[in-house]
Amino acid sequence: MTTVSKHLNGIDVEQLKQTIGAIEEHPELSRFTFRAKSAWTGGTRSRTTVQGFYGAGQEDDSRARPLEMEGDEPPVLLGTNAAPNAVEAILHALASCLSVGFVVNAAARGIEVESLDFDLEGELDLQSFLGLSHDARPGYAGIDVRYRVKADAPREQIEELCSYVQRTSPVMDVLTNPVPVRVRLEG
Amino acid sequence: MTTVSKHLNGIDVEQLKQTIGAIEEHPELSRFTFRAKSAWTGGTRSRTTVQGFYGAGQEDDSRARPLEMEGDEPPVLLGTNAAPNAVEAILHALASCLSVGFVVNAAARGIEVESLDFDLEGELDLQSFLGLSHDARPGYAGIDVRYRVKADAPREQIEELCSYVQRTSPVMDVLTNPVPVRVRLEG
Repeated sequence: MTTVSKHLNGIDVEQLKQTIGAIEEHPELSRFTFRAKSAWTGGTRSRTTVQGFYGAGQEDDSRARPLEMEGDEPPVLLGTNAAPNAVEAILHALASCLSVGFVVNAAARGIEVESLDFDLEGELDLQSFLGLSHDARPGYAGIDVRYRVKADAPREQIEELCSYVQRTSPVMDVLTNPVPVRVRLEG
Repeated sequence: MTTVSKHLNGIDVEQLKQTIGAIEEHPELSRFTFRAKSAWTGGTRSRTTVQGFYGAGQEDDSRARPLEMEGDEPPVLLGTNAAPNAVEAILHALASCLSVGFVVNAAARGIEVESLDFDLEGELDLQSFLGLSHDARPGYAGIDVRYRVKADAPREQIEELCSYVQRTSPVMDVLTNPVPVRVRLEG
């Protein structure tokens, strides 16, 4: 048996338990609204900033400054390689989400994680984006994720945890199931 | 009428036309495979790198060094605010994709874009992620995008362009329609 210390895998296990307890008592605390602003910065480049969000019953002001993400395309897609492109950012979002899910749930179960890493790959046909075909879907036809875990637990417990993390991952959900997206043009 | 110069909106219009022409002749050139590697870096933090990809009939080696994306969570979600979180990265990916789509298609139509910016918002209930409910979906219940464009074209042409960009955006597609995601645990 692994002993649960206050911090495990860099996660404050006490805070995690308190959060879960608080939401059990007040389910409305689990509602979050995340926000981003993004601006075109020339060519295929754009810059997105995130700062405040609503969650745990209040407006969050923990970020003194906005956090930035940049987007661009490689030269073959008319860009300058200043940053990853949008569909590469999707692969990052998926890995980041599975990583947080794995490590937090491992901490909750008292499993110490030594390392965790991912290889991701997605297949895309640009015919639709370039206006050449309406048969091919514009986005990824499929995404393949392989990951490796070193953790202080039997293999079958790791497998069960991986499967749990996939079922409860926000990004896994928004990729594998439809999300209503409303786009409005202003001004 | 706007005159199409070789570069418009920072986009090489000649290259764009050549790319479209080449893919019309050899449709297999439109097939791309994007890849990412990601590693847990402690707590809720992870680092994703992208470098090579397959596209336009060959392995792309235009990036001399990997491009990085970082993920973390805010303190209320057990992190340290070192970087945007995974669902904020999703909002960035969507804005970045719509931005590229708008500017490239505007260039193809001879429309000069002066500015383009986005406000994005997504609603999320963490009950499922925290294991408290299987009723709420883990990911965004919905995403709202508002955007503003200044461009040298009549309003109705801008509206038609926006609508076209939404229909052909890879990230819009992967969010609004299901993507098969295969996750395999190795080693």
